[in-house]
Amino acid sequence: MAQNRGIGSDLPDKMRAWVLGDPEELSLIEKPMPTPGRAEVLVRIDAVAICATDLEILTYGTPALIEGGPPFNKNYTPGHEYMGTVAALGPGVDEFVVGDRVTVEIHAGCGQCKRCRMGMYTSCHNYGLNYGDQDKGHRANGFTTDGGFAEYAVNNINTLIRVPDEMTDEEATLVVTAGTSMYGLTELGGLVAGESVVVIGPGPIGLLAVAVAKALGAAPVILVGTRESRNEIGRKLGADHVIDARSEDVVARVKELTGKGADYVVDCAGNETTVNQAVAMTNRGGKICLAAFPKNAVEFNLGALAVNNIYLYGIRGEGRSATHRAMAFMEAGTFDASLIHTHTFPMDDLPTALKYARERIDDAIKVVVSNRPGVVGGPKPAKDKT
Amino acid sequence: MAQNRGIGSDLPDKMRAWVLGDPEELSLIEKPMPTPGRAEVLVRIDAVAICATDLEILTYGTPALIEGGPPFNKNYTPGHEYMGTVAALGPGVDEFVVGDRVTVEIHAGCGQCKRCRMGMYTSCHNYGLNYGDQDKGHRANGFTTDGGFAEYAVNNINTLIRVPDEMTDEEATLVVTAGTSMYGLTELGGLVAGESVVVIGPGPIGLLAVAVAKALGAAPVILVGTRESRNEIGRKLGADHVIDARSEDVVARVKELTGKGADYVVDCAGNETTVNQAVAMTNRGGKICLAAFPKNAVEFNLGALAVNNIYLYGIRGEGRSATHRAMAFMEAGTFDASLIHTHTFPMDDLPTALKYARERIDDAIKVVVSNRPGVVGGPKPAKDKT
Amino acid sequence: MAQNRGIGSDLPDKMRAWVLGDPEELSLIEKPMPTPGRAEVLVRIDAVAICATDLEILTYGTPALIEGGPPFNKNYTPGHEYMGTVAALGPGVDEFVVGDRVTVEIHAGCGQCKRCRMGMYTSCHNYGLNYGDQDKGHRANGFTTDGGFAEYAVNNINTLIRVPDEMTDEEATLVVTAGTSMYGLTELGGLVAGESVVVIGPGPIGLLAVAVAKALGAAPVILVGTRESRNEIGRKLGADHVIDARSEDVVARVKELTGKGADYVVDCAGNETTVNQAVAMTNRGGKICLAAFPKNAVEFNLGALAVNNIYLYGIRGEGRSATHRAMAFMEAGTFDASLIHTHTFPMDDLPTALKYARERIDDAIKVVVSNRPGVVGGPKPAKDKT
Amino acid sequence: MAQNRGIGSDLPDKMRAWVLGDPEELSLIEKPMPTPGRAEVLVRIDAVAICATDLEILTYGTPALIEGGPPFNKNYTPGHEYMGTVAALGPGVDEFVVGDRVTVEIHAGCGQCKRCRMGMYTSCHNYGLNYGDQDKGHRANGFTTDGGFAEYAVNNINTLIRVPDEMTDEEATLVVTAGTSMYGLTELGGLVAGESVVVIGPGPIGLLAVAVAKALGAAPVILVGTRESRNEIGRKLGADHVIDARSEDVVARVKELTGKGADYVVDCAGNETTVNQAVAMTNRGGKICLAAFPKNAVEFNLGALAVNNIYLYGIRGEGRSATHRAMAFMEAGTFDASLIHTHTFPMDDLPTALKYARERIDDAIKVVVSNRPGVVGGPKPAKDKT
Repeated sequence: MAQNRGIGSDLPDKMRAWVLGDPEELSLIEKPMPTPGRAEVLVRIDAVAICATDLEILTYGTPALIEGGPPFNKNYTPGHEYMGTVAALGPGVDEFVVGDRVTVEIHAGCGQCKRCRMGMYTSCHNYGLNYGDQDKGHRANGFTTDGGFAEYAVNNINTLIRVPDEMTDEEATLVVTAGTSMYGLTELGGLVAGESVVVIGPGPIGLLAVAVAKALGAAPVILVGTRESRNEIGRKLGADHVIDARSEDVVARVKELTGKGADYVVDCAGNETTVNQAVAMTNRGGKICLAAFPKNAVEFNLGALAVNNIYLYGIRGEGRSATHRAMAFMEAGTFDASLIHTHTFPMDDLPTALKYARERIDDAIKVVVSNRPGVVGGPKPAKDKT
Repeated sequence: MAQNRGIGSDLPDKMRAWVLGDPEELSLIEKPMPTPGRAEVLVRIDAVAICATDLEILTYGTPALIEGGPPFNKNYTPGHEYMGTVAALGPGVDEFVVGDRVTVEIHAGCGQCKRCRMGMYTSCHNYGLNYGDQDKGHRANGFTTDGGFAEYAVNNINTLIRVPDEMTDEEATLVVTAGTSMYGLTELGGLVAGESVVVIGPGPIGLLAVAVAKALGAAPVILVGTRESRNEIGRKLGADHVIDARSEDVVARVKELTGKGADYVVDCAGNETTVNQAVAMTNRGGKICLAAFPKNAVEFNLGALAVNNIYLYGIRGEGRSATHRAMAFMEAGTFDASLIHTHTFPMDDLPTALKYARERIDDAIKVVVSNRPGVVGGPKPAKDKT
Repeated sequence: MAQNRGIGSDLPDKMRAWVLGDPEELSLIEKPMPTPGRAEVLVRIDAVAICATDLEILTYGTPALIEGGPPFNKNYTPGHEYMGTVAALGPGVDEFVVGDRVTVEIHAGCGQCKRCRMGMYTSCHNYGLNYGDQDKGHRANGFTTDGGFAEYAVNNINTLIRVPDEMTDEEATLVVTAGTSMYGLTELGGLVAGESVVVIGPGPIGLLAVAVAKALGAAPVILVGTRESRNEIGRKLGADHVIDARSEDVVARVKELTGKGADYVVDCAGNETTVNQAVAMTNRGGKICLAAFPKNAVEFNLGALAVNNIYLYGIRGEGRSATHRAMAFMEAGTFDASLIHTHTFPMDDLPTALKYARERIDDAIKVVVSNRPGVVGGPKPAKDKT
Repeated sequence: MAQNRGIGSDLPDKMRAWVLGDPEELSLIEKPMPTPGRAEVLVRIDAVAICATDLEILTYGTPALIEGGPPFNKNYTPGHEYMGTVAALGPGVDEFVVGDRVTVEIHAGCGQCKRCRMGMYTSCHNYGLNYGDQDKGHRANGFTTDGGFAEYAVNNINTLIRVPDEMTDEEATLVVTAGTSMYGLTELGGLVAGESVVVIGPGPIGLLAVAVAKALGAAPVILVGTRESRNEIGRKLGADHVIDARSEDVVARVKELTGKGADYVVDCAGNETTVNQAVAMTNRGGKICLAAFPKNAVEFNLGALAVNNIYLYGIRGEGRSATHRAMAFMEAGTFDASLIHTHTFPMDDLPTALKYARERIDDAIKVVVSNRPGVVGGPKPAKDKT
């Protein structure tokens, strides 16, 4: 049966994997099968979603997370939003069995630094230190260690989330995106039900931030966007109001809808305009999460932030087990994350898939590559459940 | 006995008070004695410390806290860091008795808005709404309601902190400053003992932030300053290291002293240089409190903040009963806040006192005005306890 | 129009109200119309749900909340789960207008004590002090101040929640019950989505705790009950599993369903058996909320609690604005609280309604009394929306 | 130099270690030197303090932490409050160098379970699973893995705390006790400065809870004890008031001293009387930490706990890096933990040391055994710094 192809006793010795050479140079090569260690499993990759960060990595390399940090990370396999099937277990692992369907989060912390000890494993102080004589055990698959544009990958069991039988491969790849949105709202803290939430920017994280905020009971949930096609998906995912950033005075409209300003703002656009709008639209004592951010320093109204006791923080991906919480809502059917999935291509067509994602061809939002036989290119088939 | 002058049965009908007219126009006038209402007391003011915000208010008016907010607040009495003696009780008050020595915090929230209901009374959504048909009960004495440059003031009992017998009037006026520093560290949250704290700017709030951080067990406590005379006071208040901002590379030195960067940074300078230094010196997952802030938008490195999962928030004065916690340490003698008190003048010489504070004459840090008979101008007498 | 009967300019001078004399002595009398003060409104009561605590109060008086506390509270109006229409505004109130539909929470804290300053207004240290020379402003309508078995009541605006147009009177009365369940899960804290929750006891609070836990994303949600009719409602409100406490080994079954035991347990039965079951079924580091409790000391396994780092706390009604969060989910249609509403009687038939509630006649769960003309006795009409 | 005896290149092949056979059977044997793995170091043990739990383990075995849990743990080395010198590094460790003085906390979590992922490593869901095919990496040295009554032990680097040069071996062994007290107050949460704290039971954890509470600014700090010699140490460590549990009405006295009751109660006696006193003396919304607990179920007043919204939780040893915070205060000299150290014996005299601890001979509180040459039996020498 296809489901059991290439796992357990059927495990091959070699695998095919896309490897990044110099910037923009992706090659599909054959590599030895990796071996899972203690607290690790081997995952047969079934599907991988493409993230804007993947596109950035191909050109600029892994974001330099530490000043004077690692140079352009090459000769490794990118791709961090993948799901698949447990193919082999590392020593002592009994939390999973071969054949389990799993999706992943990106980060496994070192487990020893101050932040990991606090449970903040995505703020690991040994970020990126996972090779050679500086192996502190940190892994960020697809960023600093081998990721998902391949047939197999090794994952720490801390990065695995079970996938229910009835969930499609494609929807399961969206857990890390939904988990990032969930993490933003987790860290915004507070008691979200009944509070007002504004999401700026209807990209994948923004759209699922709308969905997660609504699931958590936020009211009203307001989406600020420009492309009507995406705004419409935002409405389906739970936005009570959509503000067209091109034709409306965004801050004035938020104040009109909320009275005193918003309790929480999640900025998924992250440019000079939006970060200042975020400050201006947040009420006294409110909170702002930057899920996207400007590359360079920008003119920023810190005074208004201070005078109004506003809390601001930045996140980079998921954290604090937020992927598990996102999956709980997805499994319960509280929101349909697959509304943001638009295209699926075979893994061998990764370059085409990347092109669709980069150029937003055919209104592409989330483009997925699959290792399953029979996957065809182009837009996803009409969804039965919507 | 002098201690009981002008309280209880000895209460006069009128009082003298400094009143702000147009910008910079302070006049000493005679006014009717105010009457405390429910949950309020009348305080006979014994001493008032001058804060940098007072100087700002005299020129520019109360900081415009709400866009389209109140115009220049005139015909009222500024002064918000005062202490004194309970002179009369409002109806139903039994928490205090006439004759109790008390010091004050600035804010009494409305008690009805979302933030007050959460205990965040300094982020009151009815800030400044305390007059006429918009009386929501918010008070910020010395900012939006009558303050301490007078013989008497009315205070909500929520704003009162008991003063121990052995504490001088001048030290007691410093509670709101220490409470602001404490609030910054409270909101920075976390488990401060054993964590590294950097304080930028050895003004009154910065110096007491050093003291409070040290009291809470922070290690190391690092002060960044320029004036050696103030840095020296920082050392006495607990700074383990002092960085001279003029001669050292501040960020590099913090990293040298802390390894991965600081866990917490309290910026009490709040200019473009320091806010960016704060981001650069904070470690992944660390926190920054802005206790001062730039008036206008500045070039700010939000990207570094986001990439490193840094939390930033701004405070404006004290909050969450932090003044009580500050007083607990002051009463226990954990630190000597009076090290930052440099001069005392009679209340009638308020203009001289303001001049000393504004021009830092004679290395003035905290300048106090007093209603007590026998107070003389100039530097404070040698302190017996240090 | 009936909706505007008896509000605004149509306000009568007198009203009818049920008043409690000696234990079990309820009389319907005529009283002067009460007048709202600062931050208060007059509510025309439209409907009131009966709570088990009401039955207790009629016999034993308001629970003695403070040792040596108030004697049997008599000559006042009980009833605390009411909703209605704003009939008049106190001075300065502009948060509501006459005609607004509102439901209520019970407690308005004094606003001055340590707990109120922290936002924990249901733990007010001046609980019950609201009369005569000990008036600290605390109100617990229906417990220590006049409640809802009447035509009108005065409410602090802090106790009001807006009711959407399309919500029935009866459903709106359930907000305080849902808010109590929500508060329990709020205080259990943590990150509920994806965590396991056990609710013991399918009374009104237990059933809505199932609904709220499910809304917050808990999985699995397990209900422990005995009456199959109530268990069935639990399933409709979101219970993934129901354990029959009479035929199953409750603790063993919870461990079977959860593996390591439950993350959170809400005990709404509160007897010696269930509190010890709660400890035995909670996993290491998990949390228990007692929403009901034994009247007398019981044999309790504190050792197991300590060895397993379990957190336990008791709640008495709603808190921390949880009613607003409950209403957010009810308004969004996330769960149908009205499934627990079984009967409506006219206010004049309060004794009959109490009898139904006390004796669970006709499988009564939530029995409501109404001031609306045209209400008939007996079971509620078939609900259109289920 | 003696300091470098038996570390680094001077490491012997074998070591001497006390091993527990059947209950009460301790033998001093020779064993092979253990080898540190990844993220581990070998510690040359210099001194070990004896804890009441050690005495319990010798007789009853490791506390059965999981129902149907491990049988009597035999053929291992007990002793969990030890300190020493880093003797060798596991692969990849650069956080320490050979020769560093370190003291330890007991627990290293598995790093994979739900609680470890949250930073609650002492509530690890794989507690005790560290051998054979159930090796999940959890270690509780001296409980479930080899501890400190030996010449060497292997420690995960997560369990190490640096010891300042000027701190004696004996004082350094007290960090786990102080860390347990600190953890109790950490988990009590809140903003301790200025809040009232009652500590019941002047054993080692209770006495250091007094010290830690005082260091955190609590006021008043009240100690409840019976032995005057221990109460006197409590006063030296910061108790503002001491209540003699034999001659005073403890609850009445706490209410007299605090007004409304205590904000926080740490019960270090943990018997039926004290746990009920704790509930009766805690104010509404206050918190109770059980640092000791009754072995069997006791009559407990859960109703009073629920009616008063009291939070209760149990701790078993340190957690959340509290040992580091305790050390921060000890290093700063905020309190003198060594006041509770009374005797030191050579490691070879462990049976004598245990007898002193068990029978409280010569008013013994903390009895230490040492591997340092030249240590003599009996009471510690007069301390220079007090």
